[in-house]
Amino acid sequence: MNERELLRRIRERSADLEGRGGVIVGPGDDGAVVCLPRTAVLAVDQLVGGRHFDERTAPLDLVARKAIARNISDLAAMAATPRFALAAGCLPLGFDRADELFESLSRWARSFGCPLVGGDIARGDGPLLLSVTVIGEPHPSRGSVLRSGARAGDRVCVTGSIGGAMTGDPPGHLAFEPRVNEANALAERLGPALTAMIDISDGLGVDAARLGEASGARLALDAEALPLAPDAAGWREAAALGEDYELLFTVTEGSAGLPSSVAGTPVTAIGRVLSLGDLGEYQAGCVVRDDQGEHDAASMGWDHGRGQGPCAPAGSRR
Amino acid sequence: MNERELLRRIRERSADLEGRGGVIVGPGDDGAVVCLPRTAVLAVDQLVGGRHFDERTAPLDLVARKAIARNISDLAAMAATPRFALAAGCLPLGFDRADELFESLSRWARSFGCPLVGGDIARGDGPLLLSVTVIGEPHPSRGSVLRSGARAGDRVCVTGSIGGAMTGDPPGHLAFEPRVNEANALAERLGPALTAMIDISDGLGVDAARLGEASGARLALDAEALPLAPDAAGWREAAALGEDYELLFTVTEGSAGLPSSVAGTPVTAIGRVLSLGDLGEYQAGCVVRDDQGEHDAASMGWDHGRGQGPCAPAGSRR
Repeated sequence: MNERELLRRIRERSADLEGRGGVIVGPGDDGAVVCLPRTAVLAVDQLVGGRHFDERTAPLDLVARKAIARNISDLAAMAATPRFALAAGCLPLGFDRADELFESLSRWARSFGCPLVGGDIARGDGPLLLSVTVIGEPHPSRGSVLRSGARAGDRVCVTGSIGGAMTGDPPGHLAFEPRVNEANALAERLGPALTAMIDISDGLGVDAARLGEASGARLALDAEALPLAPDAAGWREAAALGEDYELLFTVTEGSAGLPSSVAGTPVTAIGRVLSLGDLGEYQAGCVVRDDQGEHDAASMGWDHGRGQGPCAPAGSRR
Repeated sequence: MNERELLRRIRERSADLEGRGGVIVGPGDDGAVVCLPRTAVLAVDQLVGGRHFDERTAPLDLVARKAIARNISDLAAMAATPRFALAAGCLPLGFDRADELFESLSRWARSFGCPLVGGDIARGDGPLLLSVTVIGEPHPSRGSVLRSGARAGDRVCVTGSIGGAMTGDPPGHLAFEPRVNEANALAERLGPALTAMIDISDGLGVDAARLGEASGARLALDAEALPLAPDAAGWREAAALGEDYELLFTVTEGSAGLPSSVAGTPVTAIGRVLSLGDLGEYQAGCVVRDDQGEHDAASMGWDHGRGQGPCAPAGSRR
């Protein structure tokens, strides 16, 4: 199938989008034209063969799902509701499943409430690479929940469990449910008492440290309290593994009614935000405490800039 | 430089964006938060090493420029004004110029009025790949100019010249000016008489055929009238080369005042939109006429789906 036929099929699959759901012009022109809320949340993320999935074993449909779901998870982390998506695919030279891939991308995007309104196809001498941009609508009353709002005394909580990304069939990192409903329910119920939020993509340790740094605060997590997935090896492995796509969030100390679950997903309190006091800003971040002492959370998990990932070549991961 | 430092530098470079120009939250959180017009134009495009540029010879700053400018050209083709951009980079495993690359992306995006509000960095076992998404604002009175509005009798026009993408130092495809001002001036001056528009990225032939097909119309171009770049080999080569990033547009027959230039760029009338009459829809598209007869325009230019491009391996281009 050449590009012309492929683009025609993509256009035809999306033709029913036009004139409803805020889509004025769908795929097929130089750009899509959409109606947006006056304030929008924008995020972009990439899925790279040999890095974020194994091209030899991962079903193509679940690769497409993950490409969309990772972005939806970023919107969830802001407590935003997905509205529109654009997907760009750089396909390996011999790849002949482009139509199937874009059919899956289109279907999953719709199922997450975020139809594809635009895209691009290229060929490259490398692995399959999908780049997805999503546009979401902030929570109508709480607004966008940033990483930077955690304050001393806040409780630190996490949805679901961690450390299950590589186990199960299909493995968690190909089948997770982005926590859109959970984020929305938290924003609705807690309002401004929901002070900060992030999704756990690179590992609970690294992402908790990011939230702490963004907030100029120091999180202290209790290793014993971490909700480990059934197959997780131990808390250190679970905190470093990444790809959980759970929400890590902070809640004001005095707020009543921290639920034990939201939208059917368990919520676990796993720590506190410390007062920096005289420690100074360089102490911002996160530590995990166990019976051995305190462990720096920022050194757990991945660093994409150094080329690590769940499918990285042996030896490149810590 | 690891990802953490790199992301910190990207964040710092963009810190001044926040609180002005509609940017509420810039890079550094799970998503950016921006103020948008109620109707927006969205486009995504990719730039692939070894395909859209030669990794061995193209200056990195101009690679970054091209990645942004191609997308700006898509907005121009809709007569939209650039507002925001997001850039995702998949970097080769040994690539150590990520900070320089993102500095260039950020600078060029600003210079085109479209600051980077978000991004993503990954590593892959392939060429350098940049995927850019842009968000623009439709023309306030004319609205978005689609490919599908051409009608029988319309004149077909093009800005600037074609066939100069691979010549010059730097070559045209690395240094073109996206025709934002020209598109805006055309929309302003012609209003609804500007019936359809596309930017010439894959070749005048292919892109004119696309406009014809989208409009259910047949364009007839006059080979003699095509405005060739000084170094262009001939009309066939120029119409097939691609990467001109000029605007091809149609104007209502009766409209007075088709300018000979807009925003300082020449405008050339190169053909007409024919009445399909009894020919039927399968004749929609474009032909170019010279003294040899009529030539099907759709068969000129590239087909990305088949892995062609200005830097494609020898033999893969027609």
